[in-house]
Amino acid sequence: MELKRAKGTEDFPPEKKILRNEIVTKLQKVFERYGYNPLETPILERYETLSAKYAGGSEILKETFQLRDQGDRQLGLRYDLTVPLARFIAMNPQIAFPFKRYQIEKVFRDGPVTKARIREFYQCDVDVIGVKSISADIEIIQLALDALKELNLKGIIKVNSRKLLNDIIEYSNITKDKDSIIFSIDKLYKIGKENVEIELKEKGLGENQVKEIMSLISVSGTNDQKLEKISKKINTEGIRELKEILKFFKKDVEFDPTLARGLSYYTGTVFEIVLKDKSLGCSIGGGGRYDNMIGAFKEGKEIPAVGISFGLEPITFTLGNLRKPKKTITQIYIIPIKTFKESIKVAKKLRDGNINVDLDLNDRNISKNLNYANKLEIPYVIFIGKEELKQKKVKIRDMKTGKEKLLTIQQIIKLLTEN
Amino acid sequence: MELKRAKGTEDFPPEKKILRNEIVTKLQKVFERYGYNPLETPILERYETLSAKYAGGSEILKETFQLRDQGDRQLGLRYDLTVPLARFIAMNPQIAFPFKRYQIEKVFRDGPVTKARIREFYQCDVDVIGVKSISADIEIIQLALDALKELNLKGIIKVNSRKLLNDIIEYSNITKDKDSIIFSIDKLYKIGKENVEIELKEKGLGENQVKEIMSLISVSGTNDQKLEKISKKINTEGIRELKEILKFFKKDVEFDPTLARGLSYYTGTVFEIVLKDKSLGCSIGGGGRYDNMIGAFKEGKEIPAVGISFGLEPITFTLGNLRKPKKTITQIYIIPIKTFKESIKVAKKLRDGNINVDLDLNDRNISKNLNYANKLEIPYVIFIGKEELKQKKVKIRDMKTGKEKLLTIQQIIKLLTEN
Repeated sequence: MELKRAKGTEDFPPEKKILRNEIVTKLQKVFERYGYNPLETPILERYETLSAKYAGGSEILKETFQLRDQGDRQLGLRYDLTVPLARFIAMNPQIAFPFKRYQIEKVFRDGPVTKARIREFYQCDVDVIGVKSISADIEIIQLALDALKELNLKGIIKVNSRKLLNDIIEYSNITKDKDSIIFSIDKLYKIGKENVEIELKEKGLGENQVKEIMSLISVSGTNDQKLEKISKKINTEGIRELKEILKFFKKDVEFDPTLARGLSYYTGTVFEIVLKDKSLGCSIGGGGRYDNMIGAFKEGKEIPAVGISFGLEPITFTLGNLRKPKKTITQIYIIPIKTFKESIKVAKKLRDGNINVDLDLNDRNISKNLNYANKLEIPYVIFIGKEELKQKKVKIRDMKTGKEKLLTIQQIIKLLTEN
Repeated sequence: MELKRAKGTEDFPPEKKILRNEIVTKLQKVFERYGYNPLETPILERYETLSAKYAGGSEILKETFQLRDQGDRQLGLRYDLTVPLARFIAMNPQIAFPFKRYQIEKVFRDGPVTKARIREFYQCDVDVIGVKSISADIEIIQLALDALKELNLKGIIKVNSRKLLNDIIEYSNITKDKDSIIFSIDKLYKIGKENVEIELKEKGLGENQVKEIMSLISVSGTNDQKLEKISKKINTEGIRELKEILKFFKKDVEFDPTLARGLSYYTGTVFEIVLKDKSLGCSIGGGGRYDNMIGAFKEGKEIPAVGISFGLEPITFTLGNLRKPKKTITQIYIIPIKTFKESIKVAKKLRDGNINVDLDLNDRNISKNLNYANKLEIPYVIFIGKEELKQKKVKIRDMKTGKEKLLTIQQIIKLLTEN
């Protein structure tokens, strides 16, 4: 048998998983600070739920893994965390609104595999359900900025509004198939201005209509200048909302009238989190307002919602390139010198003092043990011989400097806790 | 469309997920203290890997969810974390042994659904790969005891050895199909002594053979007494190892010669974690030594391994019954009184001080806001009016006592951080 992983899946050994855990912990901390509570929903959903017409749409659905259980029920692996959230809200009428939840879990997409795109990956989502006012949009942007800061990443939040895009299209005297035009505009950074123009013409737009749209979405300057330029021609709810949102932020939030986001369920503000260093080549997250989707799951009742999703994979990839990977969470490696029984007790005391301790279980000699500690990059090694035990002290070596000290257990706990 | 979850799956709303997160954090802390590093492997595995003959065996395989990707590759959802670990070890020859890893992730089983048994659930596993000596078995037991303590659960670790069970069967002059006899013994607590005897006779054992086996596994007394009684007839490696392991523990570790554990891949010590309060009706975890399984994935090379798995569901169920569920992680709810812009700034300062803060985004009146904070059981509410802002103080209400105080932001941070 040839050993392989399933196509498009990855293993994350300690040197990668330690960083992933750190990122998740930081995001979770920011989410909780903003009053979002944790929710967990299953990975398996009924295929009927995932394929509901008001859910993700055909683009995503064709990448959905399908399966059947032994009772021949048609199931799917969820492709995002938004549709399961909508299903959860609709099934739990007792929930108090606003419902602010975060969810950091895996989603699955059976699509083309690239370096940046694998088939099962983590989404880190926050959503506010039940707030129609743009106060929630403002909170989400503020949260995203705080998340960047917590992760020590330099980025900006791009902001636009689906309402404004619709208004721009209407202003250009186009009434049919607005979504299709929006998706072409969304590709501007990917395929360039000229190709977007060609695509729009192919979609049946006249020369002047294309010109009008391109001139409106290509405005330049500061946020205020861009908003002012568009306002001269268009002064609708879309632009007024953007003005109100953007005046809350002095920096690192950029009004980008070309931003549309691929999904069809967005109805208002849309966001994208991009890094100032462009080398990643994609955003590290995004989201927006979707006021109709959840309600559609609930007999058409209006349930406004806005949220943002952080991608664990692009964040890990970026941070992984910025620093040397940590190979272990272990702080001390104990080498017993014919003192296994006593060394276990020392290990226990250190562990009770909140120190991460490993000890040799294989009765290896000192040099093999030092090689092992070196390979794993464990910062401290303790040698425990009969002589040291009599003195109630042990010898601790700083593996970086090679310096050794004779210390009591309490002194070691103090040394490592204060570091 | 009728909204339902997939059969055998569950949602975990905040009042359940908060507890689940707490348990995971505690287990993770204990695992890391013992020098185990995190590993993540995919949920999707090639079906060929999951169905390898040295993996879980037919009992588990028939509960494996199968699916195909768009390239028609045969895949499965992993049913445990041990087979993926074996696949990972075999594919990564550069790994330094011992490799001590923990993994807290979901597994899937398409089996009968009961209150205690759902189709996707979390396993919290620690395993030591590459240690033949029982030092590792001792460490695993010590870790399990520490985990119980950390979780504030009163439990015991039951210990036995597959080697001893094999020896007992051999001593009773039975040579064929030992595994089948071991599985019957394993049912003792479930089906009772008499039924086990009937089953053994049905499997072709003679009256005296059954009597001999039952008398050996039914020894009573302290661990030492039980070991002594068996030693008089059997003095093999199995019993000697158990003696050495058990002398490390004074309490909460019980030698149970009937314990076998269902899986066929165990080769030595087996463990089960049970609560002293029997009302749960099942163990909260278990494991053992499996010295052949990983090596079988790697061209038969000998790779000893021992591990234990904690079930998140039975632990959550038990702790959930012991305490009132926490409905929110939010500490302060802010009610702006015509001061939304200023209130956002106050919220930000509190959040920067590591306080979990929610604020009204819906411009609701005070009584609606207080109802909301009450329903979510948020411990403190802050009222922010123009007058308070002038004084650089805000009014904070302790929602339990109803007492109110006028405090600065810094005083509030101090109050909540010291609590």
